[in-house]
Amino acid sequence: MQTVNVAVMGHGVVGSGVVEVLLSHDKSIAVKAKSNINVKYILDLRDFPGLDYSDRFIKDFDLILKDDSIKVVVEVMGGIHPAYDYVKACLEAGKSVCTSNKELVAAYGAELLKIAGEKNVNFLFEASVGGGIPVLRPIAQCLAANDLYEVFGILNGTTNFILTKMIKDNMSFDDALALAQQLGYAERNPSADVDGHDTCRKICILASLCFGKHVYPEQVRTEGITKITLSDVEYADIAGYVIKLIGYSKLLDDGKITADVYPALVAKNNQLAGVDDVFNAVMVRGDAVGDVLFYGRGAGKLPTASAVVADVIDCVKHLQARKYLSWDCGFEDYVVDSKTVKTRLYVRAEVDDTLDAKANIFGIFDDAEFIIAGKDNNEVAFITPAGVEAELKEKIASIKQLRNISVLHVLD
Amino acid sequence: MQTVNVAVMGHGVVGSGVVEVLLSHDKSIAVKAKSNINVKYILDLRDFPGLDYSDRFIKDFDLILKDDSIKVVVEVMGGIHPAYDYVKACLEAGKSVCTSNKELVAAYGAELLKIAGEKNVNFLFEASVGGGIPVLRPIAQCLAANDLYEVFGILNGTTNFILTKMIKDNMSFDDALALAQQLGYAERNPSADVDGHDTCRKICILASLCFGKHVYPEQVRTEGITKITLSDVEYADIAGYVIKLIGYSKLLDDGKITADVYPALVAKNNQLAGVDDVFNAVMVRGDAVGDVLFYGRGAGKLPTASAVVADVIDCVKHLQARKYLSWDCGFEDYVVDSKTVKTRLYVRAEVDDTLDAKANIFGIFDDAEFIIAGKDNNEVAFITPAGVEAELKEKIASIKQLRNISVLHVLD
Repeated sequence: MQTVNVAVMGHGVVGSGVVEVLLSHDKSIAVKAKSNINVKYILDLRDFPGLDYSDRFIKDFDLILKDDSIKVVVEVMGGIHPAYDYVKACLEAGKSVCTSNKELVAAYGAELLKIAGEKNVNFLFEASVGGGIPVLRPIAQCLAANDLYEVFGILNGTTNFILTKMIKDNMSFDDALALAQQLGYAERNPSADVDGHDTCRKICILASLCFGKHVYPEQVRTEGITKITLSDVEYADIAGYVIKLIGYSKLLDDGKITADVYPALVAKNNQLAGVDDVFNAVMVRGDAVGDVLFYGRGAGKLPTASAVVADVIDCVKHLQARKYLSWDCGFEDYVVDSKTVKTRLYVRAEVDDTLDAKANIFGIFDDAEFIIAGKDNNEVAFITPAGVEAELKEKIASIKQLRNISVLHVLD
Repeated sequence: MQTVNVAVMGHGVVGSGVVEVLLSHDKSIAVKAKSNINVKYILDLRDFPGLDYSDRFIKDFDLILKDDSIKVVVEVMGGIHPAYDYVKACLEAGKSVCTSNKELVAAYGAELLKIAGEKNVNFLFEASVGGGIPVLRPIAQCLAANDLYEVFGILNGTTNFILTKMIKDNMSFDDALALAQQLGYAERNPSADVDGHDTCRKICILASLCFGKHVYPEQVRTEGITKITLSDVEYADIAGYVIKLIGYSKLLDDGKITADVYPALVAKNNQLAGVDDVFNAVMVRGDAVGDVLFYGRGAGKLPTASAVVADVIDCVKHLQARKYLSWDCGFEDYVVDSKTVKTRLYVRAEVDDTLDAKANIFGIFDDAEFIIAGKDNNEVAFITPAGVEAELKEKIASIKQLRNISVLHVLD
């Protein structure tokens, strides 16, 4: 059996998991890849003495680039630089690249896929969305006979853990975040998760794949979960919903799309409502297949590493390119402002007199679904009928008495 | 762009769907397959006058077999004969075959995969499990870096529809079956569904793929849902469970497996509990990735057809074989009698005196979870502690007073 040399760039959580899976599963992987896979180099600026494979660490990227025996490179450094430069150089040198780096793919996916296509090598990134859950390859291959028109999901485990603690254990956002940090689910600086940036990168990748043109993070309206209160959780529950952070994208009739990240009220009978803790789920809708949902652990060392290694196996098995993943460059007006499309909104506001406020609300929205008039703090919460978001928001602003208004989307 | 000729054998529900998808999506499919796909022949003994493509029907299989321009053959006739003979002949003639025929794959999968491998062509059957839901390809490719140890799921939409009607609408089994027949979800002779044979074929295919050796239907203990009563549904609900028909297979420490089909009490917080109506879901457990679940419509003309067409696209794109699906032949003692493994059991029985019966039950199982003493009809129902199934059943039989005992598995 032949041996294929690979290099792993980055020995953090995912990188060390990749090396661990490749070494511990070497026999079963060799059968599937039809080659032995040898980790020749591990690139990291830090030292890792005392490991079984400490002798494979290098600090100079050029050793990888200039070694023609390296056919597949794993990029698990994270961040844009130098990941982008290294990946581009590897592809241009005719090496296949597998990465879990969603920031990189969301920013430069179309460009890197194009280079891979020209060089007849693979650029694979299954682990960039949904961690270990198979999502991108099934969408690209198994749903190929469908015209896809909608993709959305719970794409970030950290925020889903926090929201689950708020919903199930009545924890405040701050306490739930602190617990997530204590358990290692959230970073000390949690902004990438709680402000929705991580979900944004993932919906960019999903929308790019499903609808065929690159969606850039700056085209996606992104809102995190920091403003969600326990009152919101309670009102949503009364109305038959749970609050989840959703990445959402939809194909419009004119070929353009919407793409958004926001916390939304998700109906309890929606499949996404039962996705709790650090689990993720991606829903795809196609004209022939209907709804398809992929569910599992969206993060974590070994789940993510196992997805990267599956890509490596695929590359090794098909050194002469499979290229089932591809999409075109995007353009400036491709992502339509979703404020121009129809939706329903949940509204929470402070008021002086709930009875008066209720009358005012029904004055503007005569078919509002009235949820609750809050007790102590004179809050009201209600759900609007369907309408164009921008117009709904104007109407909401025109309701007398409402102060400190908070608005969320509704996903039925 | 080159054109690849394909033949479709069978113009029933799925076959007509395959032709419909290939014709209606021809442009987007050509882009993905990198070839135009031309349906040259449709094999069916019946006449279909008045269709746009009526001129493509043939009645003689040899026209397909002897036409070297036919590179891919779709088998959607169902049943074992002549499907097996035709598929085998096509593979031996160097044609790739795509099928939705679970009966065929469950009976002859290993043999047909071996021929395909020898002839360097593909034998694909994504649609045979889960209809349009991507399941087999993601397991084979995306989870390749895992050692899989458990696979189970709700694999039959008809029985899941019937059970959902019993659970949600308090319909009797007979009424729910009649409704399913009226809606076209169940055949006039519903045995293949309600007696579990369809689920059996699917768990055979899943277990074969996950654990690497062929599992034959006759090796799988198979029990249907015809004995489930509305009392069972009610008692299960009280105890925090819903009743689902489950196909289940697990790898044991010695490399052998268990494989069973049975109605089971599924804990309400289990992801499978929320899978209702005609939807299916498959759960796979791997050592690195943890739990992964695939969910969607498990049957129906267009979902199933779209999965077959995705296989066709894959074949056309890779006429020189990909062969990612494969497993070895099974052997006689490979599937272990699951009565020898640990489980918990739910028990319902008639009694004369519920108080007495309760005392007798606790006399045998001092840590039984006591659910209910039925009202009018002097029934009792309880859940045993974990134990070896055969031993549990002996103990249950030894409990005085219990008559007409009904036993179900418990899946927590």
